[in-house]
This record gives sequence, C-alpha cells and structure tokens, in this order.
Amino acid sequence: MDYYSQTISRLIAELGHLPGVGTKSAQRLAFHIINMPEEQVRQLADTIVTAKTQVRFCKECCTLTDSDLCPICSSDKRDHRQIMVVENSRDLAAYEKTGQYNGVYHVLQGAISPMLGIGPNDIRLKELLVRLQGDVDEVIIATNSTVEGEATAMYLSKLLKPTGIRVTRIASGVPVGGDLEYIDEVTLLKAFENRKEL
Amino acid sequence: MDYYSQTISRLIAELGHLPGVGTKSAQRLAFHIINMPEEQVRQLADTIVTAKTQVRFCKECCTLTDSDLCPICSSDKRDHRQIMVVENSRDLAAYEKTGQYNGVYHVLQGAISPMLGIGPNDIRLKELLVRLQGDVDEVIIATNSTVEGEATAMYLSKLLKPTGIRVTRIASGVPVGGDLEYIDEVTLLKAFENRKEL
Repeated sequence: MDYYSQTISRLIAELGHLPGVGTKSAQRLAFHIINMPEEQVRQLADTIVTAKTQVRFCKECCTLTDSDLCPICSSDKRDHRQIMVVENSRDLAAYEKTGQYNGVYHVLQGAISPMLGIGPNDIRLKELLVRLQGDVDEVIIATNSTVEGEATAMYLSKLLKPTGIRVTRIASGVPVGGDLEYIDEVTLLKAFENRKEL
Repeated sequence: MDYYSQTISRLIAELGHLPGVGTKSAQRLAFHIINMPEEQVRQLADTIVTAKTQVRFCKECCTLTDSDLCPICSSDKRDHRQIMVVENSRDLAAYEKTGQYNGVYHVLQGAISPMLGIGPNDIRLKELLVRLQGDVDEVIIATNSTVEGEATAMYLSKLLKPTGIRVTRIASGVPVGGDLEYIDEVTLLKAFENRKEL
C-alpha cells in the first residue's frame, strides 16, 4: 500500500486488523477519520483507550462492565434465584432487549470448543459453580445453537445434575416470522421434535 | 443501549458513527477492542490521532499526505506534464495500483454536487488552474462515472477549453470480465456509443 503516505498506510493497516473490516473498508474508515474534526478524533481515541483500561469482568456474573458489580447484578429488582447462562455480553444484551427477562445472568466468556482447544477450564464455569452454592432456583442455559454452544450446554447440564437445581435450555425451532421454505432441515426437525400441544 | 455499561455504550456509539459501521458491527468492534492487548489498543488510538494531526494536503496535487509534497509530486521519474484529475486519494490509489500510469495527479477532494450544495469553489479547482499555468501537455479527467463526477468533468472541460491544453476523459463501457447480462442499460449504451474500430 505505498500509494498512500506512511501515516495513512499504518492507519489503514491497523483498522484492517479489526474483525469484519477488509482493506476497502479500512481505507474508507481511515479517510473518514482524517476528515473528522480533530476534537472528535481525539475523543474517539480516548474512548477506545478508556474502554480497554476501565472495563473489567463483573465479580458476580463475569460480564464486561465498568464497576465491580454490573448494573444487573447490583439491582435488587432482578430475581437473583434465576440465572441465565450465556456465552458473551452481546448475548446478554440480546436477551435484555426483549425486556421480559427479570432474572440475572452468567457470562461464560466463551464456549467449549475442542477444535479451538477451549476446554471447560478456559471459560467462566468455576465462577458459576461458586454462585450455585447460594440460593438458586433455576439455571437457564442460553448458549448459542452452534456445535460449541450445544457442547457447552450438554457439559453444563451433566455438571449441574448432582446439584439438584432445575436446569433448562432455551428452545430451538423456527424463528418467529420465518418462512419454512428458507429454513434449514436441522432447524425444521428440531421444531418438529419440540412441537407443543395447542 | 443501557444493556452495556456506560464506557462500552460510549465506545459502541462512537464506533457506530463511522461510515459503514452499524450498531451490530459497532458492538462487535467494541468487544474486539476490549479483548485486544492493551499495548495494541493504545497503539491504535495513537495511530488514529497521529493520522489526523500529521496528514495534510500535498501543496501541489492536494492529495492527503504526511509531507509538504506527496511522493508522486516529488518524484522526478513521473511525467509532470500529464495531470490526471481524480475526486479523492482513494481514486488516486486505484490508478496507482494499475502500475501503468506515469503522469501526476490532481485530487479535487470532492465533486461538484448542486444537490449537496458543493459548488466549483468547494473543491480544489483553483489549485489545478494555478498548476496549468506551468508546462502541461494533457489533463485527463478521471472523476467518477456518477452524476456528480460527470457534472464535474463537464464543468472542468468547459473551464479548460480556453487554455488550449489537451483535455481527455477516461472511457466509459463494459468492465473487463463483465457479463453483458448483468450490466445496466446506461453502461451498455455508453459501451455501444464508444465502440472502436478493430
């Protein structure tokens, strides 16, 4: 990329390392940044460093947050006896957006993946087990419906069986608004298996 | 976005203002940045500010560069009597990638667009006219093949007519490797109009 000066090339290269940003997008972002008011650029750079240095794991649920306890774990309006286990903070946010779930979460910060060499000790399972020694009614496993997510769900359900706590898994099936024609066979079969009486 | 802590929300919001970055991508980028090593994050922030503060317009061709004169304008291996006029530095890079053009450039930093209120005085036209007082053989207009690019090309060709300098426009037609079936009618007509004897 010697069509650009060194400073611009470096910015394009560094932006290009971000996920989902190819060379073309990186160029577009770089020139956008160069054309932004200096004030805004400094603020962006500052926000990036602040986020990196200030954000840590919630002591309770292991989600990424600014303080020792995340807003959900420190809220007394939430049902702390119902714990939904998710893979990451974005999945937590996805359920929060529904506005209907009133329990708390546990963020594994990953999923078991023998392919990537991620075992049970590499995700935040120990922290979950510690929490389960308290007063817990139900653990809802809401890991993704992927190979890794399902493997993690299986592992977790076996691990939790001896505790006697109710363990549930979110349902698999046809997404609401989904057209059967465009849905893969595995999902269609799951939806059939999990059919409900009307 | 109160599903995330304040610092994370702010990072997502600021990243979301960049072009081509929607809320989902901004979330993905934000969590990627938070998971990057601190060293790399500081470097990214630093590169962003450096690019903004160090990059300026080349005194000669108005492209974005680190020094007073860009590498192309300061090279004596280039033909300074042939000037290709482009809209922005990315278009310059696109022609440089061909590796075949040996002239120099003039970067307008925009195109005339009455819709957006961008007139001839808002782009780097005056700088081009100053350069044309020197020894110039040909001006190649390589603005985009869009409404704005064509309007700019028309304006420029009329403006340059009295100077007696040879003014050319890059060809419009079917892209190499393009399948006629998938090409729009306007391009097909242009390709027909601009047909060449074999």
